[in-house]
Amino acid sequence: MPSFLYKSDPVRGRQWAEVFQRQAAALDFRIWPDIGDPADVHYLAAWEPPPDIATRFPNLKLLFSSGAGVDQFNFAALPPELPIVRMVEPGIIRGMVEYVTHAVLELHRDRPAYRRQQAEGLWRPLPVRTAGERRVGVLGLGSLGQAVLQALHGLGFDCAGWSRSRHTVPGVSCFAGADELSAFLARSEILVCLLPLTEATRGLLDATLFQHLPRGAALVQVGRGAQLVIADLLTALDSGQLSEAMLDVTDPEPLPPGHALWLHPRVQITPHIASMTQPHSAAEVVLDNLRRFEAGEPLIGLVDRMRGY
Amino acid sequence: MPSFLYKSDPVRGRQWAEVFQRQAAALDFRIWPDIGDPADVHYLAAWEPPPDIATRFPNLKLLFSSGAGVDQFNFAALPPELPIVRMVEPGIIRGMVEYVTHAVLELHRDRPAYRRQQAEGLWRPLPVRTAGERRVGVLGLGSLGQAVLQALHGLGFDCAGWSRSRHTVPGVSCFAGADELSAFLARSEILVCLLPLTEATRGLLDATLFQHLPRGAALVQVGRGAQLVIADLLTALDSGQLSEAMLDVTDPEPLPPGHALWLHPRVQITPHIASMTQPHSAAEVVLDNLRRFEAGEPLIGLVDRMRGY
Repeated sequence: MPSFLYKSDPVRGRQWAEVFQRQAAALDFRIWPDIGDPADVHYLAAWEPPPDIATRFPNLKLLFSSGAGVDQFNFAALPPELPIVRMVEPGIIRGMVEYVTHAVLELHRDRPAYRRQQAEGLWRPLPVRTAGERRVGVLGLGSLGQAVLQALHGLGFDCAGWSRSRHTVPGVSCFAGADELSAFLARSEILVCLLPLTEATRGLLDATLFQHLPRGAALVQVGRGAQLVIADLLTALDSGQLSEAMLDVTDPEPLPPGHALWLHPRVQITPHIASMTQPHSAAEVVLDNLRRFEAGEPLIGLVDRMRGY
Repeated sequence: MPSFLYKSDPVRGRQWAEVFQRQAAALDFRIWPDIGDPADVHYLAAWEPPPDIATRFPNLKLLFSSGAGVDQFNFAALPPELPIVRMVEPGIIRGMVEYVTHAVLELHRDRPAYRRQQAEGLWRPLPVRTAGERRVGVLGLGSLGQAVLQALHGLGFDCAGWSRSRHTVPGVSCFAGADELSAFLARSEILVCLLPLTEATRGLLDATLFQHLPRGAALVQVGRGAQLVIADLLTALDSGQLSEAMLDVTDPEPLPPGHALWLHPRVQITPHIASMTQPHSAAEVVLDNLRRFEAGEPLIGLVDRMRGY
């Protein structure tokens, strides 16, 4: 009997098991380390695959990431023909829309400044701008970036998006490729990073990039920690080039106690909680991809190894 | 020549003047204290009308509030037949949707707790619930309450609304009248107050009301300061009956330096900035009401003096 092996948080694994039991009874659903006969393992969903994956599971047909990213995978250690699938599921998308909507409104409505005024007992209205006068830019136009832009556009913000390749998002000015990055940055008063971590995006959020933003811009970092050069962020905050930063991801995670980011008055940190896979909807999406795989249809979230996501 | 007299913030008044000049050149638009001949004043827009309004402007036909509320008006000092119009304009509505959306996401996603953890250098994810599992209740189903509920429903929250009289809002459980208030409160983990200030709502947010909320509920107060009994709020926060409060209005405004609310770690205060009349759209709405008045059509925002709003 072919089996589906789950190697990630076991509590969530049991929620996947319920969905599989109802909808795919012909599959033997197993939770790591209870792997059964390794030769039966046709499908693996993992946050971190076992290092000996190629030799251990000779009949593996598909590898699923249990999260939105695949930057935690070492592609070189995976069988070269094995298809890899990112997690594109509505639970992750909804969580990210919530987090970024909050962050953009927090910055747009000067909530950090009002919190500082409260600490001083100061009742002082600050100048107000409408959402239509506020230019927000989102780096990354995948399923997350597009959903976030749709929500921000719905609130009336003046929205732009940037990605490596050309995309179209209704109501949003779309920029593409390295040539158009600086024009995109020049109009982004609030910059949201939703890029995957690849060799091209590692260290992208650095002094050079910040210099292209309008003076006093704010950063919302919900990509991956290694994209941000922390020393450059601190310099930009201290010079006033950036006014505020909201970080859900850092490098390292967790940040060590006493790190400068914890203490900075213009930095807000959350412990990588912007968006979590929701077990039930994730299992449904994986089952849909299994059906697509059997039918020879395109998979949702199939990774291009050359591109890195 | 009939005149329209504006008695509120003069900077905004000049923006109204531009709109009137373009669209109602037959009206003499005047900004207080430059009132011209008082007998020419047919229309008055004011935050605080002059106390001698009845004798000073014998030909006054309509009185507009320059803000969303009319609780600052002393009805007894106004000519009994004079129609009073509240400000119902898209700029006020958009600002309120922004403010409340931020506040609900702030509470839903535990941002106050994460901010406290950051102050301790603590990287600790807290349990996550989806928006669909979060029950939000809005007191007040006028144009602001309905727009806020539409936005929260769009984010997936489990929404309910309460008002004095029966309303219907798509996707929202609507409760009406005193009889249904406690059932509404019992399901409201995040309670948003958008009620007008009337004799019926003065002091409504008190210990008795808080006791009907689920334990650990949070309050977003964007109505009027005098609706909230501050001593009862502090008691409810300290006992854990309420977990957090976000207040945009207080009594008095501004709060005096050193007031207990400024200092409370679970209270966030903003200086009555949730929503402001946007001069251009406000002027357009007033002009539309003048047209309606001339044509004998119903006015948008006409106040029922008995009801108080």
